[in-house]
Amino acid sequence: MGQAFLFDVELYYSRLVDERSSEIVLDDTEFKHAVKVMRNNVGDTLFVTDGLGKIYKTTITGIKSKMLISEIEAIYEYEKSLPNVNFVIPRLKSADRFEFALEKCTELGVTKFNIFNAERSVAKGEKSERWRKVLLAAMKQSLRAYLPEISFKKDLKVLNKEGNVIYIFDQNADLLFKEVVENIKTDDENEHYFIFGPEGGLTENEIKLFPNAVKVKLTGNRLRAETAVISAAAALGI
Amino acid sequence: MGQAFLFDVELYYSRLVDERSSEIVLDDTEFKHAVKVMRNNVGDTLFVTDGLGKIYKTTITGIKSKMLISEIEAIYEYEKSLPNVNFVIPRLKSADRFEFALEKCTELGVTKFNIFNAERSVAKGEKSERWRKVLLAAMKQSLRAYLPEISFKKDLKVLNKEGNVIYIFDQNADLLFKEVVENIKTDDENEHYFIFGPEGGLTENEIKLFPNAVKVKLTGNRLRAETAVISAAAALGI
Repeated sequence: MGQAFLFDVELYYSRLVDERSSEIVLDDTEFKHAVKVMRNNVGDTLFVTDGLGKIYKTTITGIKSKMLISEIEAIYEYEKSLPNVNFVIPRLKSADRFEFALEKCTELGVTKFNIFNAERSVAKGEKSERWRKVLLAAMKQSLRAYLPEISFKKDLKVLNKEGNVIYIFDQNADLLFKEVVENIKTDDENEHYFIFGPEGGLTENEIKLFPNAVKVKLTGNRLRAETAVISAAAALGI
Repeated sequence: MGQAFLFDVELYYSRLVDERSSEIVLDDTEFKHAVKVMRNNVGDTLFVTDGLGKIYKTTITGIKSKMLISEIEAIYEYEKSLPNVNFVIPRLKSADRFEFALEKCTELGVTKFNIFNAERSVAKGEKSERWRKVLLAAMKQSLRAYLPEISFKKDLKVLNKEGNVIYIFDQNADLLFKEVVENIKTDDENEHYFIFGPEGGLTENEIKLFPNAVKVKLTGNRLRAETAVISAAAALGI
């Protein structure tokens, strides 16, 4: 299913999809945006994703004080982009730069994130609600049908190493990341985990946790932490 | 000349380089950063770029009230990255997103920028001093030796079309950008101009100005304006 028909639409998100009754409910911020900001009315067409791979073309049948009901007219199913790609990103010093990286990765098709406290992370801890908002907005903006999964790890020790291909970005590596991109994109057997460093890089202790990791470099130049993340996403996503 | 020796250094910028007398002067904000913030003293090693392709390893010989004098110990010359690549970027609605794009492009090796008022640009006009600060900081941060050139065009009409290869990013194009990247990187005869659209895209009028432009797309998905810019830079730079 192509996406060309969706270039200029506003995409909404709902978990309240009932295909049997052909009804979708928008509530909360999605309801407010559709009705109060975009001033949609009964009879208008609305595109809604469930964040699980489908986009619905719907017609609004009812608007109440706190929710909107829309009838499903057509269902479009999408394949997940980069289904075997996991980005393992440290908390960065600047929340803006960190969220910018999440947004860009989502636009470029990354759907699985592990956020961790690096030993050299300045800011630490979980901000799931905030991150989820960033991912949701980016998914809708880029007209994607998968809301990325995001989980938080208190450190790299708890990252699952079994059966996964793990990459560590290292400026001294000989292997260029772009040389492995095609193999990763066509591999439907293994999960690939890309571990990025914070400002100042991963520590020796952290690197030692992954003795079998593939060391790759993006470029010969020093890149900011979020630039490395975004560049890798671009190499995979475009 | 490799750059490996420069991984953990702070890089400074000076236009006041005198190779004959082996002296470099830092003044203004660079002086303040070196002396007041980083607390360098006479005898310390300082790495300084002229922004024109050289990085100097120097030793501080004198610190006065408003300037620092440093003696050149070694000179490293760098080739310009992507010397035939010109990014033609519209003013974007958000100054943050616009400056983020400039920063990322500089880190990834773009050295020539044309900024223009697009017909659909919300914010217009030239902010050269501000932009130059962003480029300077990004050059130093990524340990590059070329301060990017940036010029402002009041609209796309004044962009020079003669003898240049022009690309327009168009979601409906058949040609994928990544398919032309290698040709661009190895072409030392032509200048390549990449014209990006603002939020809402280029207008028909603007596109008609370049009847011979190569239409390329980055991905099948809708990308924010700055994401397109950064992704293209990543495809060229990594």
